[in-house]
Amino acid sequence: MTATAPFTAEDYRARMERAARTAAEAGLAGLLVAPGPDMVWLTGYAPTAETERLTLLVLTPGDDPVLVVPALEAPDAEKAAGAPALTLRDWTDGKDPYAATAALLDPRGRFGVSDNTWSLHLLALQKALPATAYAALTEALPMLRAVKDAAELELMAAAGAAADAAFEEIRAVRFAGRRESEVGADLARLLREHGHQQVDFTIVGSGPNGANPHHEMGERVIEDGDMVVLDFGGLKDGYGSDTTRTVHVGEPTEEERRVHDIVREAQEAGFRAVRPGAACQDVDRAARAVIADAGYGERFIHRTGHGIGVTTHEPPYMIEGEQQALVPGMCFSVEPGIYLPGRFGVRIEDIVTVTEDGGRRLNRTTREMVIVR
Amino acid sequence: MTATAPFTAEDYRARMERAARTAAEAGLAGLLVAPGPDMVWLTGYAPTAETERLTLLVLTPGDDPVLVVPALEAPDAEKAAGAPALTLRDWTDGKDPYAATAALLDPRGRFGVSDNTWSLHLLALQKALPATAYAALTEALPMLRAVKDAAELELMAAAGAAADAAFEEIRAVRFAGRRESEVGADLARLLREHGHQQVDFTIVGSGPNGANPHHEMGERVIEDGDMVVLDFGGLKDGYGSDTTRTVHVGEPTEEERRVHDIVREAQEAGFRAVRPGAACQDVDRAARAVIADAGYGERFIHRTGHGIGVTTHEPPYMIEGEQQALVPGMCFSVEPGIYLPGRFGVRIEDIVTVTEDGGRRLNRTTREMVIVR
Repeated sequence: MTATAPFTAEDYRARMERAARTAAEAGLAGLLVAPGPDMVWLTGYAPTAETERLTLLVLTPGDDPVLVVPALEAPDAEKAAGAPALTLRDWTDGKDPYAATAALLDPRGRFGVSDNTWSLHLLALQKALPATAYAALTEALPMLRAVKDAAELELMAAAGAAADAAFEEIRAVRFAGRRESEVGADLARLLREHGHQQVDFTIVGSGPNGANPHHEMGERVIEDGDMVVLDFGGLKDGYGSDTTRTVHVGEPTEEERRVHDIVREAQEAGFRAVRPGAACQDVDRAARAVIADAGYGERFIHRTGHGIGVTTHEPPYMIEGEQQALVPGMCFSVEPGIYLPGRFGVRIEDIVTVTEDGGRRLNRTTREMVIVR
Repeated sequence: MTATAPFTAEDYRARMERAARTAAEAGLAGLLVAPGPDMVWLTGYAPTAETERLTLLVLTPGDDPVLVVPALEAPDAEKAAGAPALTLRDWTDGKDPYAATAALLDPRGRFGVSDNTWSLHLLALQKALPATAYAALTEALPMLRAVKDAAELELMAAAGAAADAAFEEIRAVRFAGRRESEVGADLARLLREHGHQQVDFTIVGSGPNGANPHHEMGERVIEDGDMVVLDFGGLKDGYGSDTTRTVHVGEPTEEERRVHDIVREAQEAGFRAVRPGAACQDVDRAARAVIADAGYGERFIHRTGHGIGVTTHEPPYMIEGEQQALVPGMCFSVEPGIYLPGRFGVRIEDIVTVTEDGGRRLNRTTREMVIVR
């Protein structure tokens, strides 16, 4: 049901050919891709539900791509934008889809398998072909979807602009006296009004709840004097948004201002570290150094960022130890934070894309602390 | 965010103990359970999102249950109803959660792993502990969640009654001249109004679309004279509904009446085959025989039913070859259908539970063809 980007069968054919070629270069006999972001990116196909019935894209270098699909699903699969570039192999209830899939595979090959493929399916393939080996797709080919082309970058920018428009409206609503869940519902509605077909998260972390980075939203009533973390995103035309601003209800204290300033400077430092050839960990280090120097190093309890594209979490990750070099066209979040348990939290997040000589923000709303009512 | 059933930590503790004991009896060294229906059933915990970060329940006979959880998620996990029965092992970004998990496991053991566990995680565990072996949970312990206790049956009956209430209202709305997607939106709203927190599907298959069993809904405008398959369900208080009625806009033809009668009789025959000790395949055979005898055997293109509980598709499956014996407390669908490509389809589905001496329908709306406007 998710709207996907307006790519053609030829676009998908080119992606599948590139994926198969990249797999061969990495010594893989092929790629096995279950429903999820990789399948959407490669074929434009997203089944209405992921179930125990096997749906699997098989890409083997030199062969035409095959989609193994339950007969019940075949009519939907035939309508996917990438279907003309696929051979459909449907199977009916009671038949063994693993034997049919195994027949397509080199029985001694090593295959990349999409991260979210159910273990049910992987174990059945391992059993059907005991001499095969497997590697998770993001381990084997972490950069497969990382570098966005011009059309993708346009869609990413549009998703970012839509999230920005939602923020410009949410900052005008009343916060004090309303539940987090009510503000979260406003955010979801605004994202939809600005073109998101899918809302993935609307975090509203007020006061002490802001100190839990993954607090979603709850029944807490927001009060005057609260710091409020707003982290929201989803998919617009198949590509993701993910942005965070931390607002304050009424006048902040000096400490709240100081912590917000530190996070803003850390976010700026992370952004300035973005350039072709820099390592992912350099972005993390740059942001983290600002927070550590200010004495809050222990209170920045997560990585600085994650890639984003047809899904809101994907490689590359901006984390210590990740030496992957940045390449123009990569898109990821830069989102440092400081979390003071029992009191409040601050996080500021933009999606950034790597350009020929640096980085470009896909979110443009102010990173200064916004005062709300 | 999904509301879950009102079970206590003691209920979850008992389920986890039983699961570990059942695993040991099956020769397994333990169970590994990722976020999803099994985790909800065992712990009451459902993370807000399933991501690349490892969240895994480890049940090993004789040990306390351990939940490996990202530090970011730990505050949410601590709030789960089953949390008092769990030891939380949180891990922070940059640390290796697989090594931490491997340390909990017998390095030569065979483990059951929940069907929907991402391959990313399974492959990492296989790499960390090369001498371990794995089996999908529904292969190893297919009946783990199949037999519902009294409290669960009450929740299943309430979900069924809510779906019935939605049908009683939808049959009164206008169909002719409206899009399938509009009627589907009505169905979703009605399910929510009658207590569903989650709507999983609202299939509206009008005219030729009804001949595709998995057609969800589209922009086709329903016409006078259409047969319309309505298949809808979701979760109410953590337990599933799934019911299908086929209605007709205005007066049906003789053929439409005949096909509907055959499916109704097949559904009745499937239901009458339900009793303790019967095999799952007996239910399929009973329903299928009616349709085959009427000359439509080739047009009944799916199994007769699937188990249902905290998820809407689970073992046992009512399918040829499934010799699992029915046990009081099992809940599953009985849903034969006839699909005439390019013309129309008919499906009738009730959720049925096995009683001491037969079966009991959890859906009570008429199975006669309902004429709508």
